[in-house]
Amino acid sequence: MASTSRALSKLSTTPMSGVASQAASRLLTHASRRTVAPSRLSALGAALVAQQSRRGYADLVTTPPAPKSKRRFRTLRWAWRLSLLSALGGVGWIGYGVYQDRHPEPQIEADPTKKTLVILGTGWGSVSLLKRLDTENYNVIVISPRNYFLFTPLLPSCTTGTIEHRSIMEPIRTILRHKRANVKFYEAEASSIDPDRKVVRVIDNSEVKGATVETEVPYDMLVIGVGAENATFGIPGVRENSCFLKEIADAQLIRKKIMDCVETAAFKDQSPEEIDRLLHMVVVGGGPTGVEFAGELQDFFEEDIKKLIPDISDRFRVTLIEALPNVLPSFSKQLIEYTESTFKEEKIDIKTKTMVKKVTDKTVEAEITGPDGKKEKVVFPYGLLVWATGNAVRPVVKDLMVRIPAQKDSRRGLAVNEYLVVQGTRDIWAVGDCAVAGYAPTAQVAGQEGTFLARLFNNMAKTEALEENIRDLSGSLNLKPGNAAEVSREIEENERQLRRIKDVKPFHYSHQGSLAYIGSEKAVADVSWFNGNFASGGSLTYLFWRSAYLSMCFSTRNRLLVINDWLKSKLFGRDVSRE
Amino acid sequence: MASTSRALSKLSTTPMSGVASQAASRLLTHASRRTVAPSRLSALGAALVAQQSRRGYADLVTTPPAPKSKRRFRTLRWAWRLSLLSALGGVGWIGYGVYQDRHPEPQIEADPTKKTLVILGTGWGSVSLLKRLDTENYNVIVISPRNYFLFTPLLPSCTTGTIEHRSIMEPIRTILRHKRANVKFYEAEASSIDPDRKVVRVIDNSEVKGATVETEVPYDMLVIGVGAENATFGIPGVRENSCFLKEIADAQLIRKKIMDCVETAAFKDQSPEEIDRLLHMVVVGGGPTGVEFAGELQDFFEEDIKKLIPDISDRFRVTLIEALPNVLPSFSKQLIEYTESTFKEEKIDIKTKTMVKKVTDKTVEAEITGPDGKKEKVVFPYGLLVWATGNAVRPVVKDLMVRIPAQKDSRRGLAVNEYLVVQGTRDIWAVGDCAVAGYAPTAQVAGQEGTFLARLFNNMAKTEALEENIRDLSGSLNLKPGNAAEVSREIEENERQLRRIKDVKPFHYSHQGSLAYIGSEKAVADVSWFNGNFASGGSLTYLFWRSAYLSMCFSTRNRLLVINDWLKSKLFGRDVSRE
Repeated sequence: MASTSRALSKLSTTPMSGVASQAASRLLTHASRRTVAPSRLSALGAALVAQQSRRGYADLVTTPPAPKSKRRFRTLRWAWRLSLLSALGGVGWIGYGVYQDRHPEPQIEADPTKKTLVILGTGWGSVSLLKRLDTENYNVIVISPRNYFLFTPLLPSCTTGTIEHRSIMEPIRTILRHKRANVKFYEAEASSIDPDRKVVRVIDNSEVKGATVETEVPYDMLVIGVGAENATFGIPGVRENSCFLKEIADAQLIRKKIMDCVETAAFKDQSPEEIDRLLHMVVVGGGPTGVEFAGELQDFFEEDIKKLIPDISDRFRVTLIEALPNVLPSFSKQLIEYTESTFKEEKIDIKTKTMVKKVTDKTVEAEITGPDGKKEKVVFPYGLLVWATGNAVRPVVKDLMVRIPAQKDSRRGLAVNEYLVVQGTRDIWAVGDCAVAGYAPTAQVAGQEGTFLARLFNNMAKTEALEENIRDLSGSLNLKPGNAAEVSREIEENERQLRRIKDVKPFHYSHQGSLAYIGSEKAVADVSWFNGNFASGGSLTYLFWRSAYLSMCFSTRNRLLVINDWLKSKLFGRDVSRE
Repeated sequence: MASTSRALSKLSTTPMSGVASQAASRLLTHASRRTVAPSRLSALGAALVAQQSRRGYADLVTTPPAPKSKRRFRTLRWAWRLSLLSALGGVGWIGYGVYQDRHPEPQIEADPTKKTLVILGTGWGSVSLLKRLDTENYNVIVISPRNYFLFTPLLPSCTTGTIEHRSIMEPIRTILRHKRANVKFYEAEASSIDPDRKVVRVIDNSEVKGATVETEVPYDMLVIGVGAENATFGIPGVRENSCFLKEIADAQLIRKKIMDCVETAAFKDQSPEEIDRLLHMVVVGGGPTGVEFAGELQDFFEEDIKKLIPDISDRFRVTLIEALPNVLPSFSKQLIEYTESTFKEEKIDIKTKTMVKKVTDKTVEAEITGPDGKKEKVVFPYGLLVWATGNAVRPVVKDLMVRIPAQKDSRRGLAVNEYLVVQGTRDIWAVGDCAVAGYAPTAQVAGQEGTFLARLFNNMAKTEALEENIRDLSGSLNLKPGNAAEVSREIEENERQLRRIKDVKPFHYSHQGSLAYIGSEKAVADVSWFNGNFASGGSLTYLFWRSAYLSMCFSTRNRLLVINDWLKSKLFGRDVSRE
C-alpha cells in the first residue's frame, strides 16, 4: 500500500490532462475491483498510475489544459482506499474466525480432583453456560441425547428449505474443543437423577448401542437444562396425527410431508375434495413459531410450488388456529393488527378463539367462540397438521420433582430460587424451559440464565481459590512470625476481593425484544429501547430480523452458512424434491 | 499456448537486464495463476512478456531516463479489460443459466389425442430420455416413487457430508417444467404392467395418502427404467443388519450411523473391545461405490473426527471386503495396484478373495481363500456395515417377465433387442439396470440408452408426420389433377426424408471411461482415448475426477451447489452432528 500512496500523492501534485486523469481513475477502479492477491496487484496498479501521470504531464504541453479539481479526486481516492481496506479487513476478520474455528489451541486435561460439574442438555441454557464457563476450574461433563446445539429461532425456515437444517446446527464437539480445559461429552439421555447419592443415571437411546447402554455419572454440581416436551393438553389424536416443531427431525418430517401432500394431491384420479383436503395445511398455535411457519409455508407455495406444479395452484390453503383472542400475544397491539392484515393479504386464514377438541387422521375438530360468545363446532379437513403450542415437563424432571419434597407444589417445571438453585436442593441448578423462574419459556430467557450461571460458577471457583489462599496465609502467619504485617495485609486484600466476588446479584432477566417473520419478506419487531419499546413491521423490519438472527448465531460458520442458504434459496428457489 | 511458447523463445534469445527478466517472470506468474479462461490469458501473458523483453533490451542501451513505452501500458490496459470482460461474461453466462432455470417459458398443453408415452422411473435412463425427447410429439406421463433425479456418482460423498444430499438431487418437476409441452408426473410406484391390456397399475406408497391410493395408467408406448434392487445373494442377516448405498435415504442413514458409532464408542464405561468393534467400519464390495465410500470414510475420520474427538483417534479402522481377487475389477492393472497401495497408506484394510457367509448384528463371518487355495474362516466384529455390491430384479419387472413367454430364460432383467425393445413385446422398451442389453449396470450405459430412445422416439414421430403428409398428398393428387407434377415432387421429397429418418442404427454403447475417488484427495481414471486407453491416478486425477463429475451434473444449479459444498467442507470441515 505504501507504494500506491506514494504514487497517488505524485498524481495529486501533478497537473494532468483530462484524459490522463480519467485513465488513471479507471485504472484505480480496476485495481480495487481485483480480488486476487490484492497487495501485489495494487503495487502494480500504483506503478502504472505513476507512469500514466508522467505521461499526462508530457501531454499537458501539447493539449489544451483542463484543470481538474484536486479535491474531488482526492476524496474519490480515499473512498477507494477505505472501501478496499474495509473489504480486505472484513474478509481477513471472517477468515481469521473460520481459521480459529478449524484450528483450536491444544487443551489442558480436565482435573478429576476438581469438583465435577455435570451439565444436562445442549440447548440455549446449557450452551450459553458452556460458552462463558472457565472450564479449567471444574471437571466438566456434558450429557445430552443431541450432540449439537440447535439455533431454534430459524427452525421454521428449515421446514420449507429456505435454510438447510445443518446450517443452524453447531456440533457440541466443536464448542467443547474450543474451551481451555477438556470437557467430556456423553451422547445419552438422563433417565433419572438421585439428589441423595448425587448421581445421574444415563442411557444410550440411539440406534447403535455398545455393551454398555446404561451407566451412572456422579456429580458434585449439577445443572439441568433438558428443556421441555411438546404438550398436547390431553386432546385426543394430537400425538398420533400431528407434527411438532421443536427439533431438527420435526422440521425434516414437515418438509417431507408438505411435498408428500402436494404429490398425493397431484396423483391420478384424485377427487377435488381430496385435493382440497390434502392441500389444506393447519397450524395450531399463534405464537412466533406458528406464525413464522405459516408465513414460510405460504412463501414456499407462492414462490416455488405454484410455478412448478401449476395444476393445483388455486387450491393451497393455510389456516392458523389460536385459542386466545389474537395471534402473537406477546407483541404490541399495532403489530398484531399488522400481522393479521398481512396474513389476510397472503390468504392465510386466522381462526382465533378456537379451541381444538379432537384430531383424527384427516380432520381437526374445533370449537370457535363467536363475537357474541356463542360456541360453534367446526371441522377442518387437513393434509398436514403442525402443532406449535405448549410445553410439558420431561419425565426425568418429573421424576426429580417427586423426589424433592420442596417441589411438590410445582407443576410446570423445577421451581428455582433467584440464583437458579432448584428449591429443596443444594447442588442442583436449573435453566431454560425445565426451570420455573417466573419468565416465559423462550430462548432469550434460557440464554441469559446460562450466562448468569457461568458467571456464578466462575465466581465460586475464584472464591474458593481465595479462601484457600487465606487459609494458607493464616497458617503461615502462625508458623513464621517474621513478616506478619505483610501477610496480614495480604490476607486483608484477599478478603476484600472475596467480598467483592461473593456479592453476586440475583438473576434478573432483561427483555431485549421479540421478533417474528410473517411471510412475503415482512417481519414484525418489538424491541426494548432504553426504557420504552420500539415496534415496527414490514420489509425493512425483515432486514432487521435477518441481521438480528445472524448476529445471534452461535458461530462464524453458522452465520456464513445461513447467509449462503438465503442466497441459495433466492437464486435457485426452494427444493421441491421429497427426499 | 502456442503464443506463450513463441514469446518465451523470444525471451531466451534476447539479451535482457536482470530487472526486466524478473519483471517478466513475475508477469508470467500472474498470468499463469489465473485459472479462468486460460487460453486467452496465456496469450495475453505472452504478449506482455514479449513487450517486457523489448523494454529490457531498450534499458540495456540507455540506462537512466527510461522512456516510457506506450505499448506496454496499452497491453496491460487491454489485459485488465479482457480479464474483466471474461469474468463478467462468465458471471453473466452462469447468471443467465440460473435465470433460465428459474423462469421457464410457458408450456404448450399435452395433446391427449397423441400417443400416450408412459415412462417409469426417474433415474439415469428415464431422465436422459426425457432430456432429449420432443415432448410435443406425445402425451408423456412419468411415473416414479421418487420425485427427483439423483446424481448417483457423488452419493458416496454424501455419506460423510462432503456434499449435502440436496446438492445432487434435481427435482423432476423442474426438469419437466422446462420441456416444450406439458408432461404429467405421478409420484407412485408401478406395481404391475399388463402388456395385453396395455395398462400400468400404480400405487401411492408414500406416507400421506389420498382417497385414491391405487389406479391404472393406460399407455400406447411404455419405457421401463425402474432400475434394480439391492442383492444380498441369499446371505443370512445382510438385509437386517447392513446399510445399502443406492438412494439418498441410504446415504443419510450411513451418515447418521457413522456418528452414532463414534458417540457410542465415546460413551462412559465402554470397554476397549467394544470401542474397537464400534469403530470398525466394514464395506462389502470392491467396485467404485465401495472404494469411494471407504476413501470418504477415512477422509472424514482423518480430517474431522480425529481433531474433535481425540480420545478414540487410534482405534478407527476401515475394512473393504471383496470376493474377487482384486478391487476395482473394471480398471486397468496399474490403477488397481495404485489403489491398493494408496489404501495401505490410508490404513484401509483390503480383504480380497473373501466371501461373506453370514452377518449378525455385530459380526461379519467370511471365508478367505489364501494364496495356497486354502480356505479360512474369519469373523469381523463391526460397528457399521455397508453393503455396496449386487443388483437384483425389482418385483414389477419380475412380474412382467413372467407374463411374457419370450422372457422365460432371462434372469437378470428384461432381455431387450438392439433397439432396446423388450423381447416378446411390441410397445415396451427398457433402459438401465432393469434391461439386459449386454452391458454393465452403470449410469453411463443407462444414460446412453435413454438418449438413444429419445432419438428413436423423435424419429418415429417425424416418420409418422411424414407418412401422414404423404397420405394427404396422395389423396389430393387424385382430387385436384391441376398441379400433379408439383404434388408428386413433394411426395418424393417426403419419401426421401422418410427413408433417411427410418434408417435408425441399433443402439451401440460407447465407453467413455471409469473414474473412482480413493481418498486423501486422490483418484484413479481409466479414460477411453481415441482407440486406446489412458490410465492415471493421483491428486491431479482427483482434479480431473472433480471436473468430470461437475460437467456430468444435471443442471447449473446442481453444479454450483456441488462446488459450494466442496468449498464449504474445505473451509469448515464436515459436520459431526448426528441429526
